Amino acid sequence: MNALLTDLYELNMVASYMRRGMNGQATFSLFVRRLPVTRGFLVTAGVESCLDFLEGLRFEERDLDYLRDQRQFNSSDLEAFRRLRFTGDVWAIPEGRIAFAGEPLIEVTAPLTEAQLIETFLLNQVTFETTIASKAARCVIAAAGRDLVDFSFRRTQGIEAGLDVARLSAMVGFGATSNVEAARLHGLVVAGTMAHSYVEAFSSQAGAFRAFAEDFPGRATFLVDTYDTIAGVKDAIAVIKQLSLAGPLGIRLDSGNLDDLARRGRKLLDSAGLSHVRILASGGLDELEIDALVRAGAPIDAFGVGTKMGVSADYPYLDTAYKLVRYADRPVMKLSRGKVTAPGRKQVFRRRRPFGDLVGLFEEAAPARHESLMEPLMIGGRRTEAQAAVAESRRRFEDDYSILPAAARDLRSPRPPSVRFSPALRKLSTDTQRELMSKLGPHGHPTGSLKT
Amino acid sequence: MNALLTDLYELNMVASYMRRGMNGQATFSLFVRRLPVTRGFLVTAGVESCLDFLEGLRFEERDLDYLRDQRQFNSSDLEAFRRLRFTGDVWAIPEGRIAFAGEPLIEVTAPLTEAQLIETFLLNQVTFETTIASKAARCVIAAAGRDLVDFSFRRTQGIEAGLDVARLSAMVGFGATSNVEAARLHGLVVAGTMAHSYVEAFSSQAGAFRAFAEDFPGRATFLVDTYDTIAGVKDAIAVIKQLSLAGPLGIRLDSGNLDDLARRGRKLLDSAGLSHVRILASGGLDELEIDALVRAGAPIDAFGVGTKMGVSADYPYLDTAYKLVRYADRPVMKLSRGKVTAPGRKQVFRRRRPFGDLVGLFEEAAPARHESLMEPLMIGGRRTEAQAAVAESRRRFEDDYSILPAAARDLRSPRPPSVRFSPALRKLSTDTQRELMSKLGPHGHPTGSLKT
Repeated sequence: MNALLTDLYELNMVASYMRRGMNGQATFSLFVRRLPVTRGFLVTAGVESCLDFLEGLRFEERDLDYLRDQRQFNSSDLEAFRRLRFTGDVWAIPEGRIAFAGEPLIEVTAPLTEAQLIETFLLNQVTFETTIASKAARCVIAAAGRDLVDFSFRRTQGIEAGLDVARLSAMVGFGATSNVEAARLHGLVVAGTMAHSYVEAFSSQAGAFRAFAEDFPGRATFLVDTYDTIAGVKDAIAVIKQLSLAGPLGIRLDSGNLDDLARRGRKLLDSAGLSHVRILASGGLDELEIDALVRAGAPIDAFGVGTKMGVSADYPYLDTAYKLVRYADRPVMKLSRGKVTAPGRKQVFRRRRPFGDLVGLFEEAAPARHESLMEPLMIGGRRTEAQAAVAESRRRFEDDYSILPAAARDLRSPRPPSVRFSPALRKLSTDTQRELMSKLGPHGHPTGSLKT
Repeated sequence: MNALLTDLYELNMVASYMRRGMNGQATFSLFVRRLPVTRGFLVTAGVESCLDFLEGLRFEERDLDYLRDQRQFNSSDLEAFRRLRFTGDVWAIPEGRIAFAGEPLIEVTAPLTEAQLIETFLLNQVTFETTIASKAARCVIAAAGRDLVDFSFRRTQGIEAGLDVARLSAMVGFGATSNVEAARLHGLVVAGTMAHSYVEAFSSQAGAFRAFAEDFPGRATFLVDTYDTIAGVKDAIAVIKQLSLAGPLGIRLDSGNLDDLARRGRKLLDSAGLSHVRILASGGLDELEIDALVRAGAPIDAFGVGTKMGVSADYPYLDTAYKLVRYADRPVMKLSRGKVTAPGRKQVFRRRRPFGDLVGLFEEAAPARHESLMEPLMIGGRRTEAQAAVAESRRRFEDDYSILPAAARDLRSPRPPSVRFSPALRKLSTDTQRELMSKLGPHGHPTGSLKT
């Protein structure tokens, strides 16, 4: 693992801290400042790849050579970089759980240099993966029990992103992915049919369907919209009859008015005695279009969802922050306008019924009928348990989702449950802010106001 | 390189083609169907990583083992996969050039199986990289000569995406990146200052600034908004004077009303005789906000641009397609509603003055005063030249940008120049469509109409 996967300013700060012996225990809190208006909840993800990164964190010789050549750092800085490992603790809400803005998703407690160096990597992974998992969960809500297949690989923001999207969509309930390498890596169900080019490569559409069915008799889904969709459905029916195909069969609609075409296709199939042939719809779908189709009662059995889920097209990032909340036994906070952070090491407590989250101080005991969401996933630089399998994270998601208030699940105007701060956390915030303001002296006063 | 970085349907089709000996020469065309309304042009990117992928394309034993275990393919399919290499030609518009919707960015001519297998990877890379390069170019337009620094790494869609964004933003004119590994890999200028946590880790802001300036006297930029921005500017001025700092110096504003704070900060600096101290602004900026600040005359010398550029927040993908246009010496096309493709192998011809692009057939000679944009970057599976350096792609961008009509550069309501089709291409389209319609027979007629 490569310690240069960071921003230069992290290295500046680490070098400066090392020169000054400022390496007391620090706690940084990673959280989402506020949710996009179309998100009623977050599905946490990304911490597992952060743990991998932390376990392997080190500067390789080529990294040190590069920094030496840049003349940004002196030889004792480089020597300190060479020795640096991550030795700290990571408490986090495990992957797949539902969380909200203002709740720490991860808190890192480590010597200041180590905890600072890793900021960029942690933000990157948690922001991206939580963004995608939360978006994919909206598709699952919209599909209302119909099957979902991840078709995003061709338009994700890179190959690594595509592999992650397949895993994250499976975590929240997608049944399969088209992405072969992701399926191999993560043990997912892989699915796929044919492209328009396949139909075009044959001299007739019926010929293409016949060839495909002969080659894959156990899993033929016919793409029917290359030329004319209804003609395509009729060609598919003819081939199914001609070859007396059994096994799972389907047709795929990829363009046009999917509701209308699904109804007409269903009618043709049913009239031909093929009520067991499924209809798969795809083509630029997002959760709102899926929701509309489902509510309209379109006879679609499965949706292929690609780009708009795979890049979280309506909101392709989250407003995440990684903030120092405690250093050398004192709480710290930032007062920048609109970006005030709550000080101190924390814990998140959840009551299942009625559903409610409370952010408190790390030292506080869980109130009655509340569970603690943050768990010690790394102690002293080592994982406390093996990486969670997708199935395990999926169980966590399903369990949390089962108790999530309906208002938070609404796709168009969701209302996330309010997250309360404990009296002890509120008092620490007030006290810390007062102390900071008194220290700012004659130059001015903080411009932000504390949000709780 | 891993041939499983693809969608299952590609493998289905490849296996089917192999069983049938359908492996004639095919040409696939990769293009953007239509531009987002806020894009007046595209900056091409992604082909270089595609060429790397194609040179190394092969199924490894673990890939074949996986496919065998899945029982999706028989043993002769697997043997054919094992032997598969990419042996074809790739003609493409080189990275950094300006292009438009409807123009082939890449055309692959190869045996059908090879050309089909690679679809997913090529679409992924070209879509993502062209999306980002085109977005970053808008920031360069907005900055109107002021410096730009890529700050996106913490919120890109993965680590690989972050490394690419740094390179692509440099390609269109960003002066530096905060991303250390990207700078090392691609020879970019790396830049960085300090985080709010640095200020908070000291017992006073002035103390933090003094420490930083002592440690990096040659490159101190002070982040002034941790508590109160104007107080921060005053602390920075005091430290600069106290330590008699020379060398490049700056202050960074990261929140609040940047226009107002920049003016007040500039006044304070100038009054203190520090007119050489630069002002860097950051904090959720996109090209429209940069444009507004520049037009308002805010005294900002450089902009740090992060998330919104790094994920292309307003439009995080492009409507790309990879379509079979020719197989076994006959032109082919798709007629799906709204997705009609133009048949045949092509070339793009550009006239510089007056600016105008013409898409023609591959065999056509360039019209007078036109240059051919597509170049043979790979012949017989081997690159024709070494990977282009960022600086070379940047020269291409600057050259094309210098002749781009002003209407296409507009940030809010851009009008891309119209792309014409040559008479020969129009005739081939009409003829192919007519032939396809006559073949569809009694089942129906194509529902799309040809767009030229």
